[in-house]
Amino acid sequence: MPKVSEEHRAEKRQQIIAATLRCVERDGFHKTTMAAVVKESGLSAGSVYTYFRSKNDIIHAIAQSGLTGVTAAINRLIPEEGSDMDAPPPEWAIEAATQHLLDLGTELGVDLPRIALQTWAEAARDPEIHAIMVPEARRIRDAWRNYAEKAIDAGQFRRGADPERIAMVLTGLLPGFILQRIMLGDVTPKIYAAGLADLLD
Amino acid sequence: MPKVSEEHRAEKRQQIIAATLRCVERDGFHKTTMAAVVKESGLSAGSVYTYFRSKNDIIHAIAQSGLTGVTAAINRLIPEEGSDMDAPPPEWAIEAATQHLLDLGTELGVDLPRIALQTWAEAARDPEIHAIMVPEARRIRDAWRNYAEKAIDAGQFRRGADPERIAMVLTGLLPGFILQRIMLGDVTPKIYAAGLADLLD
Repeated sequence: MPKVSEEHRAEKRQQIIAATLRCVERDGFHKTTMAAVVKESGLSAGSVYTYFRSKNDIIHAIAQSGLTGVTAAINRLIPEEGSDMDAPPPEWAIEAATQHLLDLGTELGVDLPRIALQTWAEAARDPEIHAIMVPEARRIRDAWRNYAEKAIDAGQFRRGADPERIAMVLTGLLPGFILQRIMLGDVTPKIYAAGLADLLD
Repeated sequence: MPKVSEEHRAEKRQQIIAATLRCVERDGFHKTTMAAVVKESGLSAGSVYTYFRSKNDIIHAIAQSGLTGVTAAINRLIPEEGSDMDAPPPEWAIEAATQHLLDLGTELGVDLPRIALQTWAEAARDPEIHAIMVPEARRIRDAWRNYAEKAIDAGQFRRGADPERIAMVLTGLLPGFILQRIMLGDVTPKIYAAGLADLLD
């Protein structure tokens, strides 16, 4: 009997993650039980438990894949060591990062801003979810810090500016984009970036 | 028999609001029922229902008082019509607004960032809560827009800059402050404002 291929495993994992996201979007975190995920995924309970032992395991996978994607989107803006490219201005960086958030949701077929809000609330209440999210949040901040260092070198910010403090502000702009999408609905990556450009000009 | 004084009514309302905030902070939104609020407040059910007919009534009052406070904090930064004062730089404005959020929590004896996250998640799921929150979010955005207009006049931003877009970015910085308080814990009003100053410099 041939072994289950890596590709098949990755597909099944993705299927379970997508089912979980749909459950969270529809019912919130509290009502998303393993039983609900099994039902939504169309897989057997045995199959789901082969890939994830608990709801928190799935949340861990979601947080990693979602936030790793944002981190990667920021890292793509940073010129490689020894490259003669300069770091782009911060408004380009914010446009790329917020656009990535929306694209990721389209790709997964869910309303990612809505799910992000559920995840944050859960992290504020549940120490286990909080512990899962902290290193991912740290990675986003570190990616912005890395960007800020290169942008200082490129003369985007004044020499002597503190890259960690700049990273706090750039990190801070992402939740504000997500929340305003939900509450007021009018903000887009382009408009948000143009606002930042107006602020910086 | 003397009528219940206005002051007494305001006190009772505040007592119920504070009890609700403690419930939400401890148990999240879902588990905060009217029964839980009655128990936490130490008042009779009849008394609580005199002031608020439902949990959503209380949430409405919380959203109004909390967000009205933030709006007021922003409005205090805006010079009055005809005044010869200039609008302060945006980093001062952000420091004042984020400091106000923390002070309000201290005053109410609760961890306001934690409660804010619960409220946003609920607004993303429950259309009734969403409808309660939208005008409050709009008021904050409008206060920032008003600030941005005055700050453009004062030469803080370039002439011709779009005050609504600037308001989106300034509004966006507040949720990012709150979320980073919860997830990474290191951000303070002073450091966040200094980061914005570094970004703008």
